[in-house]
Amino acid sequence: MKSQITNALSDFFFEYETPRQVLVRNRRVGVVCRIIQLGVLAYIIGWVFIYEKGYQSTDTAVSSVYTKMKGVGYTSVNGTERVWDVADYVFPSQGSSSFVVMTNYIITEGQEMGKCPELPGKHNCSSDADCEGGRYRREMTGVCVDSTKTCEVLAWCPVENDHNIPDPPLLISAENYTLFIKNSVTFPLFGVTRSNLVEGIDSSYIRRCLYHPKDAPLCPIFRLGDIVQQSGFSIENIAKEGGAIGIVVDWTCNFDVAVKHCKPKYNFHGLYGHPDEKDKVKASVGYNFRYAKHYIENGTEKRTLLKVFGIRFDIIVQSLARKFDIIPTLTAIGSGVGIFGVATVVCDLVLLYLLPKREFYKNMKFKHTDSHTQEPDSEAGSTETGESKK
Amino acid sequence: MKSQITNALSDFFFEYETPRQVLVRNRRVGVVCRIIQLGVLAYIIGWVFIYEKGYQSTDTAVSSVYTKMKGVGYTSVNGTERVWDVADYVFPSQGSSSFVVMTNYIITEGQEMGKCPELPGKHNCSSDADCEGGRYRREMTGVCVDSTKTCEVLAWCPVENDHNIPDPPLLISAENYTLFIKNSVTFPLFGVTRSNLVEGIDSSYIRRCLYHPKDAPLCPIFRLGDIVQQSGFSIENIAKEGGAIGIVVDWTCNFDVAVKHCKPKYNFHGLYGHPDEKDKVKASVGYNFRYAKHYIENGTEKRTLLKVFGIRFDIIVQSLARKFDIIPTLTAIGSGVGIFGVATVVCDLVLLYLLPKREFYKNMKFKHTDSHTQEPDSEAGSTETGESKK
Amino acid sequence: MKSQITNALSDFFFEYETPRQVLVRNRRVGVVCRIIQLGVLAYIIGWVFIYEKGYQSTDTAVSSVYTKMKGVGYTSVNGTERVWDVADYVFPSQGSSSFVVMTNYIITEGQEMGKCPELPGKHNCSSDADCEGGRYRREMTGVCVDSTKTCEVLAWCPVENDHNIPDPPLLISAENYTLFIKNSVTFPLFGVTRSNLVEGIDSSYIRRCLYHPKDAPLCPIFRLGDIVQQSGFSIENIAKEGGAIGIVVDWTCNFDVAVKHCKPKYNFHGLYGHPDEKDKVKASVGYNFRYAKHYIENGTEKRTLLKVFGIRFDIIVQSLARKFDIIPTLTAIGSGVGIFGVATVVCDLVLLYLLPKREFYKNMKFKHTDSHTQEPDSEAGSTETGESKK
Repeated sequence: MKSQITNALSDFFFEYETPRQVLVRNRRVGVVCRIIQLGVLAYIIGWVFIYEKGYQSTDTAVSSVYTKMKGVGYTSVNGTERVWDVADYVFPSQGSSSFVVMTNYIITEGQEMGKCPELPGKHNCSSDADCEGGRYRREMTGVCVDSTKTCEVLAWCPVENDHNIPDPPLLISAENYTLFIKNSVTFPLFGVTRSNLVEGIDSSYIRRCLYHPKDAPLCPIFRLGDIVQQSGFSIENIAKEGGAIGIVVDWTCNFDVAVKHCKPKYNFHGLYGHPDEKDKVKASVGYNFRYAKHYIENGTEKRTLLKVFGIRFDIIVQSLARKFDIIPTLTAIGSGVGIFGVATVVCDLVLLYLLPKREFYKNMKFKHTDSHTQEPDSEAGSTETGESKK
Repeated sequence: MKSQITNALSDFFFEYETPRQVLVRNRRVGVVCRIIQLGVLAYIIGWVFIYEKGYQSTDTAVSSVYTKMKGVGYTSVNGTERVWDVADYVFPSQGSSSFVVMTNYIITEGQEMGKCPELPGKHNCSSDADCEGGRYRREMTGVCVDSTKTCEVLAWCPVENDHNIPDPPLLISAENYTLFIKNSVTFPLFGVTRSNLVEGIDSSYIRRCLYHPKDAPLCPIFRLGDIVQQSGFSIENIAKEGGAIGIVVDWTCNFDVAVKHCKPKYNFHGLYGHPDEKDKVKASVGYNFRYAKHYIENGTEKRTLLKVFGIRFDIIVQSLARKFDIIPTLTAIGSGVGIFGVATVVCDLVLLYLLPKREFYKNMKFKHTDSHTQEPDSEAGSTETGESKK
Repeated sequence: MKSQITNALSDFFFEYETPRQVLVRNRRVGVVCRIIQLGVLAYIIGWVFIYEKGYQSTDTAVSSVYTKMKGVGYTSVNGTERVWDVADYVFPSQGSSSFVVMTNYIITEGQEMGKCPELPGKHNCSSDADCEGGRYRREMTGVCVDSTKTCEVLAWCPVENDHNIPDPPLLISAENYTLFIKNSVTFPLFGVTRSNLVEGIDSSYIRRCLYHPKDAPLCPIFRLGDIVQQSGFSIENIAKEGGAIGIVVDWTCNFDVAVKHCKPKYNFHGLYGHPDEKDKVKASVGYNFRYAKHYIENGTEKRTLLKVFGIRFDIIVQSLARKFDIIPTLTAIGSGVGIFGVATVVCDLVLLYLLPKREFYKNMKFKHTDSHTQEPDSEAGSTETGESKK
């Protein structure tokens, strides 16, 4: 028993099997097959490996974004001058990756809870019967106010009149604000952490630089007007009714070269209500929300309601890192060998079915075992077609 | 030398090698092998290519979400009527992808910084010694107040009493609010940008539609009560103590067909404190946070503290796009050929080890070179086992 | 015709082709080839399958995070005692995944819109000519104020003086606050939803536990001071000027084992302005933002401006789940077979080009068809080199 295992092992280790092959010396078939094989090789090396970098594995990053606006706005409405600083025009104030910069507003001051008629044009009525509660989105009292011919509502009074949006926008000076973006990305698979303040972007550079697609593509300070323009909007349109702009920070990195070459690219595009998208413009233009500042006056709760029109900025971090990895490399090689096998099959089909001497090649390639024409224990050699004819 | 290279090249191009094969004419082995091979082929074509779409590469999207609530709530507490509009009940107000809709609250008005006793039941004491500072999470003054038999604290006074949560919830009318979602997704790999306002969802449709899973699956206007119900909560429960609901916008797209077929699907599920998850309910029910409105009265800073119970909505964009790509296609084919090779190996094992005539087939398949039984320079033919017996 | 198809089918099903092979009995070649083949096999099984789990497909999660701070801060500035509760020191208040905990502040009370001179040191002037509007980021009135020798600006007055940051930080007690994290993740591909309140983390455990990397790695309650310390900051430094800390919730799960083993791991790292990153520290230290509380006093709008220095926490959910999948399994096997083929090619090269008896083996392996030296219809056997010598 033991010697059997030893024999089997020695057979296994000392014997090596290699396929027997026919060397077909035929120009047509040779050239066709070599071209197919070289094509497959060129595809695998050129396309899969060099162009698509099939030897690399990929990873996307987890990221964190911090933003800071700078600049002061100025309005002069009915002779009242007013400046707007960061605490006034950025929502929310704490520098998140998605925020709104106010560019226009409708202010309704001194609202307090009470009953007052609706604006003319909304909920018109001629008698109390027209003002039954629950029919609209307002809390109706069921009274039709004679002086305005509109229904009375329980609401923050006076009700907001947002029929006319200020034009030109009150805070069009927003285009001169600057935005500072800090972005940190971590590629967990490769254990690499990068910041958009890459090598060479130090504090003295930041203090004087301003982003420009060609001249200063790594400066993390952006002028609002530039962002708006590069995203395809005009500042007049977007400032009036608001809009949304995506600031894409694109980290496409190859960690087979030094990490310092991994640098962000910034680009800008409109998110909703883009002027080019005809349909969607009609569906839903602009960006606005209502915001209230509450206070107590003479013991009564009051609020100042702001309908804020603004530009919403979404900092979108898009990342794709690549690095050499043995698994995709060998998968690519292995499947490349498989495709090579397909090429061989194609060549064989040509050889065996298309060439004039196909019968000759078939005889060369195949040895038949016609089991029903021979004794089971007859010598194998005698059934060979190709060689038995000797 | 040159002629050698020419020769080698002409050999390379004009010669073609193809493996010699034994054609085994055996019903059992033939049928078994063909079935195995057809099975592998069916798996590769049917499963990998057609079912799993192995010829496509995949990409996930970067996205941006904007939300807008509509609707007015009404409360009547102790005879005081009050309406709550969007600026009052949505946190934060600027329409981000994660927001809270207030459905219940405990209000503590007129708080000012000072010293006051804790609520009965908390930090009970019988003498000042029981109220040493730092022992609890409150800033203790070290005084035991006789009237309430509780410790005195430095805090916003009077302290909030949140023992009793209003039931029924004060703003249960929140179920009639509507939520409008705008979502823009970009698949960077395929260069496709889509909005949830797809073809046909124009402004006139939006103005009158309301989302329904079957009747209006693309309408981006949702009734809060519907969302709550479809996520498995009951409005009474969730409105009282709050909860969190995920609104999943599912973009599963196939860009081998026209882009217009890439449409979002909406679905809703509870995130924490879901009634089905028995354990977790006990661990941490509800969703609430405290929110303060500050004001100055008679030169003193005061605040109105709201303990807000609400439904937190997280708009979760889930995306997976697929498109034909040559790399996965050829990887699939190549590894399919490899598996084909495995099938051949299995058949060979059957042929060579399981069949009665296995010795016969072995002789047909293998030619031995028994190097130790022959002279190194002897003719190769003479050592063949199968054919030398002639 | 029909019989032809029947014949072809029966040929197809009853015939099986298997390559003819040479069994080379040579110790050197045998051992070398078997070692190469075993190496490839070991790589495929050991590395691709067992180590890299190549038989699994992967998925990342969509997630939702809810946070809640607890704890009270205490300041005593110029004899004025004050406590700070959650509604005062967390921005935003509603418990999102990215929030700021105030640790220091510069307060400017009673600002109202008006004209006032800039701080000494900023915009110095000797005459009105030095104060032309538009030259700086402030709204200049063009007047040089004699008393301070600085330009007059239209602004919220008095202007904020943020030259001196309070040191020690006013709210250094923030280190004793606790943070509760609720995190729900869904792996859409595998249909699994998990919460960080895993099995065994019930309400009674949560009430008394505190996260510790070794002793309580699953407790979702974190002490702020611990987080700061584990992220590599010192509480004194970060509390003074602010900073940003990423709390990574790492879900690396293997769904081939029971789902209950899928548990989160928490780790902490500085995001920007980390003390170790020398360059970046200089570029942009700290984290701060301005926040205003508006009120009306005697009919005039006023505000309290807070320059908030704080620790910004970003809860970053990082997820990677794996599960057995037939596609990657068979792709790995298939490409493994391909690499096996490469090993065979290498062995053949050794056999045919490096061994002393290489001519002998070439004769064994190859059968030549030298088409130009023979008649097209001559017998195949006569052209064989190896066997025709008999």
